[in-house]
Amino acid sequence: MIRPPITSTSRIARRAGGTKAAARMVPEETPVALSFAGTTHAVMMATPADFEDFALGFALTEGIVAAPDEVDAITIEDAGPGIDIQIRLKDTANRRFEARRRRLAGPVGCGLCGIESIEEAMRAVADVGQSMLTLSADDITGAARLLAEAQPLHAETGAVHAAGFYRPGSGIVAAREDVGRHNALDKLAGALARSGIDGASGAVVVTSRVSVEMVQKTAAIGAGVIIAVSAPTALAIRMAEDAGMTLVALVRGDEFDIFTHPERIRNGASQNVA
Amino acid sequence: MIRPPITSTSRIARRAGGTKAAARMVPEETPVALSFAGTTHAVMMATPADFEDFALGFALTEGIVAAPDEVDAITIEDAGPGIDIQIRLKDTANRRFEARRRRLAGPVGCGLCGIESIEEAMRAVADVGQSMLTLSADDITGAARLLAEAQPLHAETGAVHAAGFYRPGSGIVAAREDVGRHNALDKLAGALARSGIDGASGAVVVTSRVSVEMVQKTAAIGAGVIIAVSAPTALAIRMAEDAGMTLVALVRGDEFDIFTHPERIRNGASQNVA
Repeated sequence: MIRPPITSTSRIARRAGGTKAAARMVPEETPVALSFAGTTHAVMMATPADFEDFALGFALTEGIVAAPDEVDAITIEDAGPGIDIQIRLKDTANRRFEARRRRLAGPVGCGLCGIESIEEAMRAVADVGQSMLTLSADDITGAARLLAEAQPLHAETGAVHAAGFYRPGSGIVAAREDVGRHNALDKLAGALARSGIDGASGAVVVTSRVSVEMVQKTAAIGAGVIIAVSAPTALAIRMAEDAGMTLVALVRGDEFDIFTHPERIRNGASQNVA
Repeated sequence: MIRPPITSTSRIARRAGGTKAAARMVPEETPVALSFAGTTHAVMMATPADFEDFALGFALTEGIVAAPDEVDAITIEDAGPGIDIQIRLKDTANRRFEARRRRLAGPVGCGLCGIESIEEAMRAVADVGQSMLTLSADDITGAARLLAEAQPLHAETGAVHAAGFYRPGSGIVAAREDVGRHNALDKLAGALARSGIDGASGAVVVTSRVSVEMVQKTAAIGAGVIIAVSAPTALAIRMAEDAGMTLVALVRGDEFDIFTHPERIRNGASQNVA
């Protein structure tokens, strides 16, 4: 059963005037298994929507495919309590994936040793330092404001993350929502790839905090700028710095903070971060 | 290198009056590998603090051990860019874990098939319907207020989740913070177990949204009530309903919403949710 992405639920609302039964819209959440070459690579709790975007975007941002045309077919199956997405890879990607899977599986069976697992989590990200994009302060505050207008699921529930792609002069050209912030960004990555939009041509804009995985995925998209409504972690800042990525966060109205590579923000680089 | 849980970073702050360089505290984030019987079971991006609580709590809420005394030893190693935590299990738990790992590994190597993976993600939770805890409206609003006072990392960064344990008459008896909401709850589970606090004696209180994993972990703690500052997902509501758990969310000042099992909330059950 594939449920709609949001649903109405009953609740008892305790308010100043007493309690009353009242309906509320809440986000759905569904286990989605992503399988490559017949093996499940990951199961994520996700919003049941935009499955093709999710599958392609995950494959791209996790480095399983280098380009959209390495995916041969995406099959979406209703697997009772969840969704099973089978991604068939073309030969080159398939051989690369199998080699990686064998390397990761290792002699102990399913798991890596701790040090290998940590190295995999901290894998080097793509360098986006060559991105020539520059943005004004109005671009940044406008991008956050426009993303807020492109969140139909959040408007009804108040509880869904969003990731959008902003281009100066064009506004938010694509946006995706999900209960998981990583999923929203993967879905955006897939949507951009399927539309043929070059990730270097704009900025990734997210409603959520910026953890290290958000920087890794933004780099895989090829964007030189990430703009976040919430705060970054220290590790995300270090990784963005190393990747040549401009990290802007804590966008509130006309105010924001530039954490790395301020040279892309016009009139924002009058003082150096360091 | 084990870093402190929060750190000062430089940034350019864009404000109404112009831009200026200014420091800001941000949360650290570190890959933490949890290994059982020599095999890494999971790598989480976590706040580098309360490692023993994290290891024990994760083992308990994921059902790897049934009780704290099934853990023989916890070793915490600085693994360069991350932390490697080795958890040695006593014989019974070790045999159970190895059997589960073999079952999960299967003939395709590392992965399950999609349907198995989905079933594992949707595993039945412990029934907490026998919990006799009842709470007043003041308990609920007080629990959220007291948790806010028990968040030193969040107070400095504005960007860290917390999970606490509330007992009527005693207030918040334990609280843990983490950049990840699941990690905060696992650390709380470990802290409760190490202090010998019975999970059925109080309510779990979290600052975050309630996804299905939060319900699963709260049930594993044995608590009959979860109180959240943010919203629940539809799947979390269904799972809490089935597990006999009272789910209270969207606590804002004196207002809150009861989504399941209102019979534990005094004066809150004057109308049925259904």
